[in-house]
Amino acid sequence: MAKRVRLAPDARRTQLIELGVQMLATQRLEDLSVEALADQAGISRGLLFHYFRSKQEFHLEVVRACARELLARTEPDPELPPLEQLQASLGAYLDYVAQNRDVYVSLVRGAASGDAAVRQVADETRTEQANRVLKHLDALGLPGAARTELAVRGWVAFCEEVVISWLSSDRRPPRDELLALLAKALPGVVLAADR
Amino acid sequence: MAKRVRLAPDARRTQLIELGVQMLATQRLEDLSVEALADQAGISRGLLFHYFRSKQEFHLEVVRACARELLARTEPDPELPPLEQLQASLGAYLDYVAQNRDVYVSLVRGAASGDAAVRQVADETRTEQANRVLKHLDALGLPGAARTELAVRGWVAFCEEVVISWLSSDRRPPRDELLALLAKALPGVVLAADR
Repeated sequence: MAKRVRLAPDARRTQLIELGVQMLATQRLEDLSVEALADQAGISRGLLFHYFRSKQEFHLEVVRACARELLARTEPDPELPPLEQLQASLGAYLDYVAQNRDVYVSLVRGAASGDAAVRQVADETRTEQANRVLKHLDALGLPGAARTELAVRGWVAFCEEVVISWLSSDRRPPRDELLALLAKALPGVVLAADR
Repeated sequence: MAKRVRLAPDARRTQLIELGVQMLATQRLEDLSVEALADQAGISRGLLFHYFRSKQEFHLEVVRACARELLARTEPDPELPPLEQLQASLGAYLDYVAQNRDVYVSLVRGAASGDAAVRQVADETRTEQANRVLKHLDALGLPGAARTELAVRGWVAFCEEVVISWLSSDRRPPRDELLALLAKALPGVVLAADR
């Protein structure tokens, strides 16, 4: 019994966070109100604060959940050769962004000016994306130099901007051409850091 | 006399906006309060709302002033050959960012999640930076393709991220190496868009 009581609030909390993530599809993070969440979940505002100490904590957990999902969906498959890993991962990234456009924009853009903890999640997500690439530079036949880490971080920002612009563009190049651009830009910037 | 009366409020408004820009050096845009501005300017909060209809309008004008200054400082010099224009412009960009780090971060990151009008200023700034480069692609000996515009927009985001990361890095590569990375990354991504 005791165990069940301990688990239940966690499961409920997870459910509320997932609901928050879904709500990001139609509203921006900073507009996500605990009132609306309580309404959607069919619980009282008071009970909600049993699960989250503050609106800030709720926002933070929603952003963490988005970041975790993005990273999980784009996790490189170690069974594949490095270049195919990169391409598969970029493909998964593009699909995630296309399916969760507003959630993604909230993570990349909106999250940037939230409180420090929220900004940190967005920064850590970018760092993890950069590290995945940095780990395989050798295997991708790319040189590492003092400025390579900066270049790869910049490349992650490049991908974010290109994908967001692509989604809002009237004359979108086809998906495979966009993927080729993202993949080919990586050696482009890494070699720029080497010379 | 009538003319002087008409001019004075404009001059005062400009002064208040400049004060707001200076305050961005120590606080983020969303924390910029009209109370603090009124205090600094030595006027009443009520009088302040004679110049700005709302806090949102004040924030928007502050961001517009930052964007104007960044664009003015990095305006390419048409007297120079294209590659030197690009390098001089990147050098001015780096110096502006190094001297106005927090203002710049407010513009690039913070501005992203403000209201739609503020986001638009940040977007337009990025577009103008991309357009300056796009105009000279030919002269820089770089090919233009359907995806070039996306690539150049991505390159502007690349520069933003690299410069912000560089500023917070413990082991900063020297300024000229950073500039070389930014300049060389441009053909790197533009060629990636061509193939």
